Amino acid sequence: MATSSGAVASAAACSDPDTSKVDAANAQSGKNAILTIEKQGSFSVGGTVIEVPGTYESQNFDNWKPYPEGQTYHGDHASVFYQIPQNARDLSMVFLHGAGQSARTWQTTPDGRDGFQNIFLKRGFGTYLIDQPRRGQAGRSTVEAQITPVADEQMWFEVWRMGHWPKYSENVQFPQDEASLEQFFQWMTPNTGNFDANLVAGATAKVFDKSGAGILVTHSQGGLPGWMAATQTDKIAAVAAYEPGNYLFPENEVPEALPSRTGALQGIGVPMDEFKKLTGIPIVIYFGDYIPEVNEVSDDLGAENWRVRQELGRKFVETVNKYGGDATLVELPKIGVHGNTHFLFAELNNVELANLLSDWMKEKGLDKSK
Amino acid sequence: MATSSGAVASAAACSDPDTSKVDAANAQSGKNAILTIEKQGSFSVGGTVIEVPGTYESQNFDNWKPYPEGQTYHGDHASVFYQIPQNARDLSMVFLHGAGQSARTWQTTPDGRDGFQNIFLKRGFGTYLIDQPRRGQAGRSTVEAQITPVADEQMWFEVWRMGHWPKYSENVQFPQDEASLEQFFQWMTPNTGNFDANLVAGATAKVFDKSGAGILVTHSQGGLPGWMAATQTDKIAAVAAYEPGNYLFPENEVPEALPSRTGALQGIGVPMDEFKKLTGIPIVIYFGDYIPEVNEVSDDLGAENWRVRQELGRKFVETVNKYGGDATLVELPKIGVHGNTHFLFAELNNVELANLLSDWMKEKGLDKSK
Repeated sequence: MATSSGAVASAAACSDPDTSKVDAANAQSGKNAILTIEKQGSFSVGGTVIEVPGTYESQNFDNWKPYPEGQTYHGDHASVFYQIPQNARDLSMVFLHGAGQSARTWQTTPDGRDGFQNIFLKRGFGTYLIDQPRRGQAGRSTVEAQITPVADEQMWFEVWRMGHWPKYSENVQFPQDEASLEQFFQWMTPNTGNFDANLVAGATAKVFDKSGAGILVTHSQGGLPGWMAATQTDKIAAVAAYEPGNYLFPENEVPEALPSRTGALQGIGVPMDEFKKLTGIPIVIYFGDYIPEVNEVSDDLGAENWRVRQELGRKFVETVNKYGGDATLVELPKIGVHGNTHFLFAELNNVELANLLSDWMKEKGLDKSK
Repeated sequence: MATSSGAVASAAACSDPDTSKVDAANAQSGKNAILTIEKQGSFSVGGTVIEVPGTYESQNFDNWKPYPEGQTYHGDHASVFYQIPQNARDLSMVFLHGAGQSARTWQTTPDGRDGFQNIFLKRGFGTYLIDQPRRGQAGRSTVEAQITPVADEQMWFEVWRMGHWPKYSENVQFPQDEASLEQFFQWMTPNTGNFDANLVAGATAKVFDKSGAGILVTHSQGGLPGWMAATQTDKIAAVAAYEPGNYLFPENEVPEALPSRTGALQGIGVPMDEFKKLTGIPIVIYFGDYIPEVNEVSDDLGAENWRVRQELGRKFVETVNKYGGDATLVELPKIGVHGNTHFLFAELNNVELANLLSDWMKEKGLDKSK
């Protein structure tokens, strides 16, 4: 599992760690490789249609004021950008972002290198990047939303474990230049209707009707609807979850809530036959660095928000495997991969993170080609 | 200019015009061609940063309630997805969508074929697709917004000249199957802050700092900020505008407002030295079908909304050329291209539309390669 982690460890020991890390990362990523794309484009899936009773009469037009009688409104769908490389592997990879994010999560890293989209395209996987219902390019929502600009970036810096503002965590893999941080903050994009895990799960499952069987890759808040989607379609062949926000459990086995400074965390109970669908596919979960072992509430928002989610992840894995499943939780520091924040797959060592995922997919027979 | 318009004209005369048109369009688009991409990814440009006075104190955290003291907020930037093909031509193409739309405008057509993004990548151009400030994946806005789902799709069907609901216009190039219309409606995504032409223009101009010199392609409401952007950077080498919503004029030569059922239209006055920047680059404007010649107010929303914009376009072209410019307005039906709505570049004959643009770029020396 400890694929080439030596390279990163030694780079971190250099006198100018950031430059060395970027060079190492660039060298690893094969950034000059040409992408050969057989097909690419976008589509929508899922969603609902509001149909207002009455008859549409165009002459009712009154200076762009709404006159909805007899009109329709499509909302709550997901928007997907896909790319299929030449000689693609059998399974596609479908990517679902987390809270406040969009497909951009998986594109370019904050410091301008290949994100998982390009890395896995170059490794032969068809990629499908979701903007979940009520987010990004899938912004039409069937419910109202008030969007208010509230300065919150320092809170996220801390919650996402980049460090304690304005100080970065020691040896952090997040790039520390100002331009990268600015690009990263600009990834954030608001909900245009409240987050609804059921909607997101339903649309995510439907993406696989288009992509065919594939591997679902989730991040953070996308974790929970990801597990839910995997219970709704047989076309999800595996799930790789980066620091998922929550988990499903059999309804009679939901662990007690874990207290945390950022809110107590409790798993979601579902009927056993639903839960058992998660025992039929390989599952891997990754957590990064700076997460304390000790389960004590503190004022450290980053530690607080992920301590309990990692701990509940352990219980999830245990429960899945108890019922015959194949789930693994990888705590990166324990395999010698240090310095990763909550955006682990987009940091300086993201090629190493991709290698770990590739190795896992190979081990589980998920990377076959015709 | 009348590139292969015969093919479409004859297809339209067949007994099953839709199927024939799709076949013809597929055959023309070379849809099986492999894309070779040297580089692709996303970035943000433009925008502003709110900095709230005070000191950030993480221990003020109170159950995700805002505590903005000492925090920042990045908003009003544009988000851009770019792709550079192998052996790219010297100039890139930068695409700016219209009202209620996002980068999706230029991706896949409603019936699932290559949009302008793929067509021009295959023709060797680097493409840059913008989500303008406060739209789509660039959703963080520095101003508040209330987003309300209002059923309005039949109004747009009419305003965009697909027909008079539920009837499509005769021989329309918009695909008439239900799935295509649904995908098309799902392209719409709301403002997350009010539309601000200055913001959009500024961010659009900055895209060219990343892309290098290029051709700006605008649609509809993107037209006005497109002209504005072209006065702000020398890197916009040409503008191709599809049915622009408004135009710049020298401040003393703004024509009288044109009355219309969808609102009187008046050009925007700017100082002469600013206007003159538009006389230094080639400009082409395209308008589709179903736009009446007669300037009489009627209850036909599609006719109303575009009759005055085409008419003002004629005056714009006349004024640009009077001051030594090189502007052309192409009224498609007058060169034998029939049946196009307001989304002309995404319809059944979109390869023919792309050919017209390619021919124009060639004529103006905009398609050179090293």
